[in-house]
Amino acid sequence: MSVEIVPVVGIGEVTDTDDIASVITSALAAMNVGLRDRDVVVVTHKIVSKAEGQVRTIESEEAYRALVAGEAVEILRRRGDLVITKTRHGFICANAAVDRSNVPQGWAVLLPDDPDASAHRIRLRLQRDHDVAIGVVITDTFGRAWRRGLCDVAIGVSGIPAILDLRGGRDMQGRVLEVTEVAVADEIAAAADLAMGKASGIPVAIVRGLDLPAVEGRARDLVRTASEDMFR
Amino acid sequence: MSVEIVPVVGIGEVTDTDDIASVITSALAAMNVGLRDRDVVVVTHKIVSKAEGQVRTIESEEAYRALVAGEAVEILRRRGDLVITKTRHGFICANAAVDRSNVPQGWAVLLPDDPDASAHRIRLRLQRDHDVAIGVVITDTFGRAWRRGLCDVAIGVSGIPAILDLRGGRDMQGRVLEVTEVAVADEIAAAADLAMGKASGIPVAIVRGLDLPAVEGRARDLVRTASEDMFR
Repeated sequence: MSVEIVPVVGIGEVTDTDDIASVITSALAAMNVGLRDRDVVVVTHKIVSKAEGQVRTIESEEAYRALVAGEAVEILRRRGDLVITKTRHGFICANAAVDRSNVPQGWAVLLPDDPDASAHRIRLRLQRDHDVAIGVVITDTFGRAWRRGLCDVAIGVSGIPAILDLRGGRDMQGRVLEVTEVAVADEIAAAADLAMGKASGIPVAIVRGLDLPAVEGRARDLVRTASEDMFR
Repeated sequence: MSVEIVPVVGIGEVTDTDDIASVITSALAAMNVGLRDRDVVVVTHKIVSKAEGQVRTIESEEAYRALVAGEAVEILRRRGDLVITKTRHGFICANAAVDRSNVPQGWAVLLPDDPDASAHRIRLRLQRDHDVAIGVVITDTFGRAWRRGLCDVAIGVSGIPAILDLRGGRDMQGRVLEVTEVAVADEIAAAADLAMGKASGIPVAIVRGLDLPAVEGRARDLVRTASEDMFR
Protein backbone atom coordinates (compact mmCIF):
# COMPACT_ATOMS: atom_id res chain seq x y z
CA MET A 1 0.00 0.00 0.00
CA SER A 2 1.36 3.38 -0.96
CA VAL A 3 1.88 6.14 1.55
CA GLU A 4 0.89 9.61 0.41
CA ILE A 5 2.00 12.94 1.85
CA VAL A 6 -0.34 15.81 1.03
CA PRO A 7 0.87 19.34 1.78
CA VAL A 8 -1.87 21.56 3.19
CA VAL A 9 -1.58 24.86 1.35
CA GLY A 10 -3.15 28.24 1.96
CA ILE A 11 -2.43 28.64 5.67
CA GLY A 12 -1.43 32.24 6.25
CA GLU A 13 -0.05 33.98 9.30
CA VAL A 14 -1.20 32.47 12.60
CA THR A 15 -1.62 34.51 15.79
CA ASP A 16 -2.74 33.80 19.33
CA THR A 17 -6.33 34.51 18.31
CA ASP A 18 -6.29 31.46 16.03
CA ASP A 19 -7.30 27.90 16.80
CA ILE A 20 -4.95 25.54 14.94
CA ALA A 21 -7.53 22.84 14.30
CA SER A 22 -9.88 25.44 12.78
CA VAL A 23 -7.05 26.85 10.66
CA ILE A 24 -6.33 23.34 9.32
CA THR A 25 -10.00 22.60 8.72
CA SER A 26 -10.44 25.83 6.73
CA ALA A 27 -7.36 25.12 4.60
CA LEU A 28 -8.53 21.55 3.91
CA ALA A 29 -11.98 22.82 2.94
CA ALA A 30 -10.45 25.30 0.48
CA MET A 31 -8.40 22.44 -1.02
CA ASN A 32 -11.49 20.25 -1.12
CA VAL A 33 -9.57 17.58 0.80
CA GLY A 34 -11.21 15.67 3.64
CA LEU A 35 -9.58 13.81 6.51
CA ARG A 36 -9.83 10.03 6.56
CA ASP A 37 -9.52 7.49 9.35
CA ARG A 38 -5.85 6.70 10.09
CA ASP A 39 -4.55 9.91 8.51
CA VAL A 40 -1.73 11.51 10.44
CA VAL A 41 -1.86 15.31 10.48
CA VAL A 42 1.66 16.70 10.79
CA VAL A 43 1.97 20.29 12.05
CA THR A 44 5.19 22.30 12.35
CA HIS A 45 5.40 23.55 15.90
CA LYS A 46 5.82 27.16 14.84
CA ILE A 47 2.15 27.73 14.11
CA VAL A 48 1.15 25.83 17.26
CA SER A 49 3.50 27.98 19.34
CA LYS A 50 2.18 31.16 17.73
CA ALA A 51 -1.42 30.14 18.41
CA GLU A 52 -0.48 29.39 22.02
CA GLY A 53 1.23 32.75 22.47
CA GLN A 54 4.68 31.18 22.82
CA VAL A 55 6.23 34.19 21.11
CA ARG A 56 8.63 36.67 22.68
CA THR A 57 10.17 39.99 21.63
CA ILE A 58 13.95 40.12 21.45
CA GLU A 59 15.55 43.51 21.11
CA SER A 60 19.16 42.39 20.83
CA GLU A 61 21.44 39.39 20.42
CA GLU A 62 21.90 39.56 24.16
CA ALA A 63 18.15 39.30 24.70
CA TYR A 64 18.10 36.30 22.37
CA ARG A 65 20.88 34.61 24.34
CA ALA A 66 19.06 35.31 27.59
CA LEU A 67 15.89 33.79 26.16
CA VAL A 68 17.83 30.67 25.12
CA ALA A 69 19.37 30.41 28.57
CA GLY A 70 15.93 30.68 30.14
CA GLU A 71 14.49 27.91 27.97
CA ALA A 72 17.42 25.54 28.58
CA VAL A 73 17.53 23.36 31.66
CA GLU A 74 21.01 22.11 30.76
CA ILE A 75 23.85 23.15 28.46
CA LEU A 76 25.53 20.10 26.91
CA ARG A 77 28.06 21.85 24.66
CA ARG A 78 28.92 25.35 23.58
CA ARG A 79 30.81 26.40 20.44
CA GLY A 80 30.83 30.07 19.50
CA ASP A 81 27.24 31.31 19.40
CA LEU A 82 25.85 27.78 19.20
CA VAL A 83 24.75 26.09 22.38
CA ILE A 84 23.48 22.51 22.47
CA THR A 85 20.85 22.40 25.15
CA LYS A 86 18.33 20.22 26.89
CA THR A 87 14.90 21.83 26.98
CA ARG A 88 12.55 21.32 29.88
CA HIS A 89 10.73 18.74 27.72
CA GLY A 90 13.96 16.72 27.58
CA PHE A 91 14.77 17.44 23.92
CA ILE A 92 18.42 17.91 23.01
CA CYS A 93 18.72 20.62 20.36
CA ALA A 94 20.49 23.81 19.37
CA ASN A 95 19.69 27.07 21.18
CA ALA A 96 16.86 25.53 23.24
CA ALA A 97 14.75 25.51 20.04
CA VAL A 98 14.27 29.29 20.22
CA ASP A 99 13.65 30.18 16.59
CA ARG A 100 13.78 33.45 14.68
CA SER A 101 12.97 32.28 11.13
CA ASN A 102 9.45 32.65 9.74
CA VAL A 103 8.70 35.22 12.47
CA PRO A 104 8.87 39.01 12.17
CA GLN A 105 12.19 40.69 12.92
CA GLY A 106 12.58 41.28 16.66
CA TRP A 107 10.50 38.27 17.64
CA ALA A 108 11.31 34.66 18.51
CA VAL A 109 9.17 31.56 18.83
CA LEU A 110 9.53 29.07 21.68
CA LEU A 111 8.37 25.46 21.77
CA PRO A 112 4.84 24.82 22.96
CA ASP A 113 4.71 24.44 26.72
CA ASP A 114 3.53 20.80 26.46
CA PRO A 115 3.66 19.67 22.81
CA ASP A 116 2.11 16.25 23.51
CA ALA A 117 -0.87 18.00 25.10
CA SER A 118 -1.06 20.41 22.15
CA ALA A 119 -1.09 17.47 19.72
CA HIS A 120 -3.82 15.82 21.77
CA ARG A 121 -6.01 18.95 21.76
CA ILE A 122 -5.60 19.44 18.00
CA ARG A 123 -6.42 15.78 17.41
CA LEU A 124 -9.58 15.77 19.54
CA ARG A 125 -10.86 18.88 17.80
CA LEU A 126 -10.08 17.58 14.29
CA GLN A 127 -11.60 14.19 15.13
CA ARG A 128 -14.79 15.82 16.34
CA ASP A 129 -15.11 18.23 13.41
CA HIS A 130 -14.31 15.63 10.74
CA ASP A 131 -15.77 12.52 12.44
CA VAL A 132 -12.58 10.50 11.94
CA ALA A 133 -9.93 8.72 14.04
CA ILE A 134 -6.54 10.22 13.23
CA GLY A 135 -3.07 10.85 14.60
CA VAL A 136 -1.35 14.19 15.09
CA VAL A 137 2.39 14.86 15.09
CA ILE A 138 3.92 18.25 15.94
CA THR A 139 7.42 18.73 14.52
CA ASP A 140 10.54 20.79 14.87
CA THR A 141 13.80 20.77 12.93
CA PHE A 142 16.78 19.43 14.89
CA GLY A 143 20.43 18.73 14.21
CA ARG A 144 22.00 15.42 15.10
CA ALA A 145 25.24 14.12 16.51
CA TRP A 146 27.54 12.54 13.91
CA ARG A 147 25.54 13.46 10.81
CA ARG A 148 25.44 16.78 8.99
CA GLY A 149 22.20 18.49 8.05
CA LEU A 150 18.94 18.84 9.93
CA CYS A 151 15.86 16.63 9.97
CA ASP A 152 12.34 17.24 11.17
CA VAL A 153 11.50 15.20 14.26
CA ALA A 154 8.40 14.69 16.40
CA ILE A 155 8.12 16.89 19.48
CA GLY A 156 4.40 16.21 20.08
CA VAL A 157 2.41 13.05 19.34
CA SER A 158 -1.18 11.97 19.78
CA GLY A 159 -3.21 9.01 18.51
CA ILE A 160 -0.30 6.97 17.12
CA PRO A 161 2.71 5.26 18.66
CA ALA A 162 5.85 7.41 18.85
CA ILE A 163 7.92 4.24 18.84
CA LEU A 164 6.80 1.13 17.01
CA ASP A 165 7.71 -1.76 19.27
CA LEU A 166 8.55 -4.82 17.20
CA ARG A 167 10.15 -6.75 20.06
CA GLY A 168 9.29 -10.40 19.72
CA GLY A 169 8.68 -9.91 15.99
CA ARG A 170 10.41 -12.11 13.48
CA ASP A 171 12.03 -11.45 10.13
CA MET A 172 11.35 -13.26 6.86
CA GLN A 173 13.68 -16.09 7.96
CA GLY A 174 11.83 -16.52 11.25
CA ARG A 175 14.76 -15.01 13.13
CA VAL A 176 13.98 -12.67 16.00
CA LEU A 177 14.31 -9.08 14.78
CA GLU A 178 17.37 -7.09 15.81
CA VAL A 179 15.72 -3.78 14.96
CA THR A 180 13.00 -3.69 17.51
CA GLU A 181 12.09 -0.09 18.19
CA VAL A 182 11.37 2.09 15.17
CA ALA A 183 11.01 5.81 15.87
CA VAL A 184 7.97 5.95 13.62
CA ALA A 185 6.83 9.43 14.71
CA ASP A 186 10.24 10.81 13.75
CA GLU A 187 10.04 9.03 10.38
CA ILE A 188 6.60 10.58 9.87
CA ALA A 189 7.97 14.03 10.74
CA ALA A 190 10.82 13.58 8.26
CA ALA A 191 8.48 12.34 5.55
CA ALA A 192 6.12 15.28 6.01
CA ASP A 193 9.00 17.72 5.67
CA LEU A 194 9.64 16.38 2.16
CA ALA A 195 6.23 17.72 1.12
CA MET A 196 6.42 20.95 3.10
CA GLY A 197 9.85 22.26 2.17
CA LYS A 198 11.64 24.78 4.33
CA ALA A 199 11.40 28.01 2.40
CA SER A 200 7.93 27.47 0.97
CA GLY A 201 6.31 27.96 4.37
CA ILE A 202 3.80 25.13 4.24
CA PRO A 203 3.24 24.29 7.92
CA VAL A 204 0.92 21.25 7.69
CA ALA A 205 0.84 17.97 5.76
CA ILE A 206 -1.32 14.86 5.85
CA VAL A 207 0.46 11.50 5.87
CA ARG A 208 -1.99 8.97 4.50
CA GLY A 209 -1.85 5.19 4.10
CA LEU A 210 0.00 4.18 7.26
CA ASP A 211 -1.14 1.10 9.09
CA LEU A 212 -0.10 1.81 12.68
CA PRO A 213 -1.31 -0.05 15.76
CA ALA A 214 -3.78 1.81 17.96
CA VAL A 215 -1.22 2.69 20.61
CA GLU A 216 -1.29 6.06 22.36
CA GLY A 217 2.23 7.37 21.99
CA ARG A 218 3.76 10.59 23.22
CA ALA A 219 6.82 12.41 21.93
CA ARG A 220 8.32 12.14 25.38
CA ASP A 221 8.60 8.37 24.66
CA LEU A 222 11.31 9.42 22.19
CA VAL A 223 13.41 11.15 24.82
CA ARG A 224 16.36 9.02 25.87
CA THR A 225 17.07 9.52 29.54
CA ALA A 226 20.52 10.71 30.57
CA SER A 227 21.29 7.33 32.17
CA GLU A 228 20.41 5.47 28.93
CA ASP A 229 22.35 7.92 26.79
CA MET A 230 26.02 7.32 26.05
CA PHE A 231 26.51 10.68 24.33
CA ARG A 232 26.06 13.59 26.71
CA MET B 1 2.22 18.65 -4.88
CA SER B 2 1.82 15.39 -3.04
CA VAL B 3 4.70 13.04 -2.41
CA GLU B 4 3.95 9.36 -2.87
CA ILE B 5 5.89 6.40 -1.48
CA VAL B 6 5.27 3.19 -3.40
CA PRO B 7 6.57 -0.05 -1.84
CA VAL B 8 8.05 -2.42 -4.42
CA VAL B 9 6.68 -5.85 -3.57
CA GLY B 10 7.60 -9.32 -4.76
CA ILE B 11 11.37 -9.16 -4.33
CA GLY B 12 12.48 -12.51 -2.96
CA GLU B 13 15.84 -13.68 -1.65
CA VAL B 14 18.81 -11.95 -3.24
CA THR B 15 22.20 -13.64 -3.69
CA ASP B 16 25.53 -12.66 -5.21
CA THR B 17 24.36 -13.95 -8.58
CA ASP B 18 21.72 -11.21 -8.71
CA ASP B 19 21.96 -7.73 -10.19
CA ILE B 20 19.96 -5.34 -7.99
CA ALA B 21 18.80 -3.09 -10.83
CA SER B 22 17.47 -6.14 -12.69
CA VAL B 23 15.76 -7.40 -9.55
CA ILE B 24 14.04 -4.02 -9.14
CA THR B 25 13.09 -3.84 -12.80
CA SER B 26 11.51 -7.32 -12.67
CA ALA B 27 9.53 -6.47 -9.54
CA LEU B 28 8.30 -3.18 -11.06
CA ALA B 29 7.25 -4.99 -14.23
CA ALA B 30 5.25 -7.53 -12.20
CA MET B 31 3.56 -4.63 -10.40
CA ASN B 32 2.95 -2.88 -13.70
CA VAL B 33 4.64 0.22 -12.30
CA GLY B 34 7.10 2.22 -14.38
CA LEU B 35 9.79 4.61 -13.24
CA ARG B 36 9.33 8.31 -13.95
CA ASP B 37 11.79 11.18 -14.20
CA ARG B 38 12.69 12.52 -10.73
CA ASP B 39 11.62 9.33 -8.92
CA VAL B 40 13.94 8.36 -6.09
CA VAL B 41 14.45 4.61 -5.77
CA VAL B 42 15.20 3.73 -2.16
CA VAL B 43 16.92 0.40 -1.52
CA THR B 44 17.71 -1.13 1.87
CA HIS B 45 21.39 -1.93 1.92
CA LYS B 46 20.84 -5.54 2.86
CA ILE B 47 19.93 -6.67 -0.64
CA VAL B 48 22.73 -4.56 -2.12
CA SER B 49 25.23 -6.11 0.27
CA LYS B 50 23.98 -9.62 -0.51
CA ALA B 51 24.25 -9.00 -4.26
CA GLU B 52 27.80 -7.70 -3.72
CA GLY B 53 28.80 -10.73 -1.65
CA GLN B 54 29.17 -8.68 1.53
CA VAL B 55 27.96 -11.65 3.58
CA ARG B 56 30.00 -13.63 6.11
CA THR B 57 29.49 -16.81 8.11
CA ILE B 58 29.61 -16.47 11.87
CA GLU B 59 29.82 -19.63 13.91
CA SER B 60 29.66 -18.10 17.35
CA GLU B 61 29.02 -14.91 19.28
CA GLU B 62 32.77 -14.56 19.43
CA ALA B 63 33.02 -14.73 15.65
CA TYR B 64 30.32 -12.05 15.45
CA ARG B 65 32.23 -9.80 17.82
CA ALA B 66 35.42 -10.34 15.83
CA LEU B 67 33.60 -9.43 12.63
CA VAL B 68 32.29 -6.23 14.27
CA ALA B 69 35.80 -5.36 15.46
CA GLY B 70 37.14 -5.89 11.95
CA GLU B 71 34.53 -3.60 10.40
CA ALA B 72 35.03 -0.81 12.96
CA VAL B 73 37.80 1.71 12.54
CA GLU B 74 37.00 3.29 15.89
CA ILE B 75 35.07 2.36 19.04
CA LEU B 76 33.26 5.40 20.47
CA ARG B 77 31.43 3.74 23.37
CA ARG B 78 30.87 0.28 24.74
CA ARG B 79 28.04 -0.88 26.99
CA GLY B 80 27.57 -4.61 27.55
CA ASP B 81 27.36 -6.32 24.15
CA LEU B 82 26.63 -3.04 22.37
CA VAL B 83 29.49 -1.13 20.80
CA ILE B 84 29.02 2.23 19.12
CA THR B 85 31.47 2.32 16.27
CA LYS B 86 32.73 4.35 13.37
CA THR B 87 32.80 2.33 10.16
CA ARG B 88 35.43 2.86 7.51
CA HIS B 89 32.84 4.93 5.60
CA GLY B 90 32.67 7.31 8.57
CA PHE B 91 29.20 6.27 9.76
CA ILE B 92 28.62 6.16 13.51
CA CYS B 93 26.37 3.22 14.35
CA ALA B 94 25.93 0.19 16.57
CA ASN B 95 28.08 -2.90 16.00
CA ALA B 96 29.72 -1.51 12.84
CA ALA B 97 26.40 -2.14 11.04
CA VAL B 98 27.03 -5.90 11.01
CA ASP B 99 23.52 -7.30 10.80
CA ARG B 100 22.05 -10.71 11.49
CA SER B 101 18.35 -10.11 10.87
CA ASN B 102 16.75 -11.07 7.55
CA VAL B 103 19.72 -13.37 6.87
CA PRO B 104 19.92 -17.11 7.52
CA GLN B 105 21.11 -18.26 10.96
CA GLY B 106 24.92 -18.37 11.06
CA TRP B 107 25.36 -15.54 8.57
CA ALA B 108 25.81 -11.79 8.86
CA VAL B 109 25.58 -8.97 6.35
CA LEU B 110 28.10 -6.12 6.18
CA LEU B 111 27.65 -2.73 4.59
CA PRO B 112 28.51 -2.39 0.91
CA ASP B 113 32.17 -1.59 0.42
CA ASP B 114 31.36 1.80 -1.17
CA PRO B 115 27.61 2.50 -0.87
CA ASP B 116 27.76 5.75 -2.88
CA ALA B 117 29.35 3.82 -5.74
CA SER B 118 26.72 1.08 -5.37
CA ALA B 119 23.93 3.68 -5.55
CA HIS B 120 25.56 5.19 -8.62
CA ARG B 121 25.80 1.82 -10.42
CA ILE B 122 22.18 0.95 -9.63
CA ARG B 123 21.06 4.38 -10.83
CA LEU B 124 22.94 4.22 -14.14
CA ARG B 125 21.53 0.78 -14.89
CA LEU B 126 17.94 1.75 -13.97
CA GLN B 127 18.22 5.00 -15.94
CA ARG B 128 19.40 3.12 -19.01
CA ASP B 129 16.80 0.36 -18.78
CA HIS B 130 13.89 2.72 -18.07
CA ASP B 131 15.06 5.77 -20.04
CA VAL B 132 14.55 8.13 -17.07
CA ALA B 133 16.57 10.46 -14.86
CA ILE B 134 16.20 9.34 -11.25
CA GLY B 135 17.87 9.32 -7.86
CA VAL B 136 18.90 6.32 -5.80
CA VAL B 137 19.27 6.15 -2.03
CA ILE B 138 20.66 3.12 -0.17
CA THR B 139 19.54 2.91 3.47
CA ASP B 140 20.38 1.33 6.76
CA THR B 141 18.69 1.55 10.15
CA PHE B 142 20.67 3.48 12.77
CA GLY B 143 20.17 4.56 16.34
CA ARG B 144 20.73 8.14 17.42
CA ALA B 145 22.16 10.00 20.36
CA TRP B 146 19.55 11.55 22.69
CA ARG B 147 16.46 10.01 21.07
CA ARG B 148 15.09 6.51 21.53
CA GLY B 149 14.17 4.29 18.61
CA LEU B 150 15.84 3.76 15.26
CA CYS B 151 15.37 5.54 11.94
CA ASP B 152 16.38 4.62 8.43
CA VAL B 153 19.12 6.89 7.09
CA ALA B 154 20.96 7.26 3.79
CA ILE B 155 24.27 5.42 3.51
CA GLY B 156 24.51 5.68 -0.30
CA VAL B 157 23.23 8.44 -2.57
CA SER B 158 23.28 9.09 -6.31
CA GLY B 159 21.50 11.58 -8.55
CA ILE B 160 20.06 13.80 -5.80
CA PRO B 161 21.57 16.06 -3.15
CA ALA B 162 22.26 14.37 0.18
CA ILE B 163 21.99 17.77 1.84
CA LEU B 164 19.70 20.47 0.54
CA ASP B 165 21.63 23.69 0.90
CA LEU B 166 19.24 26.57 1.55
CA ARG B 167 21.94 29.02 2.66
CA GLY B 168 21.04 32.46 1.41
CA GLY B 169 17.40 31.45 1.18
CA ARG B 170 14.73 33.54 2.82
CA ASP B 171 11.62 32.71 4.78
CA MET B 172 8.10 34.01 4.19
CA GLN B 173 8.99 37.23 6.07
CA GLY B 174 12.06 37.79 3.90
CA ARG B 175 14.33 36.93 6.83
CA VAL B 176 17.42 34.85 6.08
CA LEU B 177 16.67 31.22 6.93
CA GLU B 178 18.16 29.77 10.10
CA VAL B 179 17.65 26.20 8.95
CA THR B 180 20.00 26.07 6.04
CA GLU B 181 21.08 22.49 5.52
CA VAL B 182 18.33 19.89 5.31
CA ALA B 183 19.47 16.26 5.34
CA VAL B 184 17.04 15.46 2.56
CA ALA B 185 18.50 12.03 1.75
CA ASP B 186 17.96 10.99 5.37
CA GLU B 187 14.40 12.31 5.25
CA ILE B 188 13.84 10.28 2.07
CA ALA B 189 15.24 7.17 3.77
CA ALA B 190 12.94 7.68 6.75
CA ALA B 191 9.92 8.28 4.52
CA ALA B 192 10.60 5.13 2.49
CA ASP B 193 10.77 3.05 5.67
CA LEU B 194 7.17 4.04 6.42
CA ALA B 195 6.08 2.15 3.31
CA MET B 196 8.49 -0.76 3.71
CA GLY B 197 7.96 -1.74 7.34
CA LYS B 198 10.54 -3.69 9.26
CA ALA B 199 9.04 -7.14 9.58
CA SER B 200 7.31 -7.23 6.19
CA GLY B 201 10.62 -7.52 4.37
CA ILE B 202 9.96 -5.07 1.54
CA PRO B 203 13.45 -3.87 0.56
CA VAL B 204 12.66 -1.21 -2.08
CA ALA B 205 10.33 1.78 -2.37
CA ILE B 206 9.85 4.56 -4.90
CA VAL B 207 9.58 8.10 -3.54
CA ARG B 208 7.72 10.11 -6.14
CA GLY B 209 6.84 13.80 -6.41
CA LEU B 210 9.97 15.41 -4.98
CA ASP B 211 11.30 18.53 -6.63
CA LEU B 212 15.01 18.39 -5.84
CA PRO B 213 17.73 20.43 -7.53
CA ALA B 214 20.00 18.55 -9.93
CA VAL B 215 22.91 18.32 -7.52
CA GLU B 216 25.05 15.20 -7.35
CA GLY B 217 25.10 14.32 -3.66
CA ARG B 218 26.86 11.50 -1.87
CA ALA B 219 26.01 9.95 1.48
CA ARG B 220 29.50 10.83 2.64
CA ASP B 221 28.32 14.48 2.52
CA LEU B 222 26.20 13.52 5.54
CA VAL B 223 29.17 12.40 7.60
CA ARG B 224 30.15 15.00 10.18
CA THR B 225 33.89 15.03 10.63
CA ALA B 226 35.30 14.43 14.09
CA SER B 227 36.51 18.03 14.31
CA GLU B 228 33.02 19.37 13.49
CA ASP B 229 31.34 16.95 15.89
CA MET B 230 30.80 17.93 19.51
CA PHE B 231 29.55 14.49 20.54
CA ARG B 232 32.25 11.83 20.23
